[in-house]
Amino acid sequence: MPIKRKPKVVFIGAGNLAFSLAPAFHNAGFEISQIYSRTRNSAQELASKFLTSYTTKLESIFREADVYVICVKDDAIKKISARLKLPGSLVLHTSGSTPLKSIEKISETIGVLYPLQTFTKAKKISLKKVPVLVEGNSSKSRSAILKLARKLSDSVIPVTSDDRLKLHIAAVFACNFSNHLYTIAEKILKGSSVKFSLLLPLIMETTKRIETNSPANVQTGPAIRDDKKTIRRHLTLLKKTDPKLATLYKLISSEIQRTAAGK
Amino acid sequence: MPIKRKPKVVFIGAGNLAFSLAPAFHNAGFEISQIYSRTRNSAQELASKFLTSYTTKLESIFREADVYVICVKDDAIKKISARLKLPGSLVLHTSGSTPLKSIEKISETIGVLYPLQTFTKAKKISLKKVPVLVEGNSSKSRSAILKLARKLSDSVIPVTSDDRLKLHIAAVFACNFSNHLYTIAEKILKGSSVKFSLLLPLIMETTKRIETNSPANVQTGPAIRDDKKTIRRHLTLLKKTDPKLATLYKLISSEIQRTAAGK
Repeated sequence: MPIKRKPKVVFIGAGNLAFSLAPAFHNAGFEISQIYSRTRNSAQELASKFLTSYTTKLESIFREADVYVICVKDDAIKKISARLKLPGSLVLHTSGSTPLKSIEKISETIGVLYPLQTFTKAKKISLKKVPVLVEGNSSKSRSAILKLARKLSDSVIPVTSDDRLKLHIAAVFACNFSNHLYTIAEKILKGSSVKFSLLLPLIMETTKRIETNSPANVQTGPAIRDDKKTIRRHLTLLKKTDPKLATLYKLISSEIQRTAAGK
Repeated sequence: MPIKRKPKVVFIGAGNLAFSLAPAFHNAGFEISQIYSRTRNSAQELASKFLTSYTTKLESIFREADVYVICVKDDAIKKISARLKLPGSLVLHTSGSTPLKSIEKISETIGVLYPLQTFTKAKKISLKKVPVLVEGNSSKSRSAILKLARKLSDSVIPVTSDDRLKLHIAAVFACNFSNHLYTIAEKILKGSSVKFSLLLPLIMETTKRIETNSPANVQTGPAIRDDKKTIRRHLTLLKKTDPKLATLYKLISSEIQRTAAGK
């Protein structure tokens, strides 16, 4: 009886996402054949985890893999697509906002595998609980990608390019932009006797609340109460210390009031 | 041996905060003597929890209580201060952004008791774990307020009016404004095949990360990467669907880049 060989995967890119995805592919029974990155250190570091080879040259990428996973910055996907031909292989990109057709010249079997989570090299996150959005350019590639994605995650959702873009924008507002608001809070408290960490219970309560409520229904604060006196006090201080923060405060407050008015 | 009588407290205001504070005072050994609110239903509902009396008239507020806790909207504090005289009693307001001196005409012993949490009537939150910021107008009132606050919470922090205002602004950015960003995310996904709840793991991971990191050090997303292509794609869609969201997206993105540049 022939032993079934492990499917081979090559990672193109060795950033935060590749550092989370490669172990997930490995655990799902894939052989990590090669790591490509323009940055030698990153390629080497990730390859060493799987005792596999790496390259910093696009033309040295192995041709015999079953799957290629593109994990480079969104800006770089197009450049790579112009220079890489991998006919016969399944080629996936992992970007939230890049249309599927951006990689259509690379292979006839292409798709998207977009894990909806924020990854850092330092912190391991199991992909099993992360929603993974998938897309394919044909029914054949769709079913191959679905099968593959279900080995990685318990929550696989087929989407269109349009809905994936909407989701990516929503994630930028909900996560990247929220994190910047935490950064602003920390900045405001600098030089005061109060530490940022004091805000953590309040931040946790705010997110806990939206697990069971629509955020629109649990909005609190001076803007939704139209508490002009408080808003004025806040703006007076912000204008003195950092006028750009006053501008942002005014804009978000007026957006809260516009939303409440149903506009 | 005389039985020591329970200290008496009157609540002025019967909103979300009073509904959380009154039970905390009750559990800490206070007698809830009376509830005042302009809104009869609220006053009655809160009073009924302690089988106590209520009034909707400022002039009918009992004069013999030891402590008065003002829990009205920030806008209403000044109006009440102008009409109420409670000499000899400890009078506290509970607002994050109102200066202590706003209530100086009411009594010679005044202070602030500001619980740093967001309260709703529906959801009970134990005050024990909530940071409570306190302020007093004299060493006598400060020590009385500290003693009182420590019965309510394990985390009592004396602050100045200035630092309390900074903290309140920081809380508005970190919590009220973040919640509005969740509302925007929900809005963007309306009409797509993707549900807002799909974003929850990502939102939770974002807040978990700042428990152990400065938010400035864990910023992710297209703005911090200066990923112009993604930003352009996002703005194109937002301009078509809701131009005001495009304005907000641009402003927060440029603020993220300004912060990263250390300006």
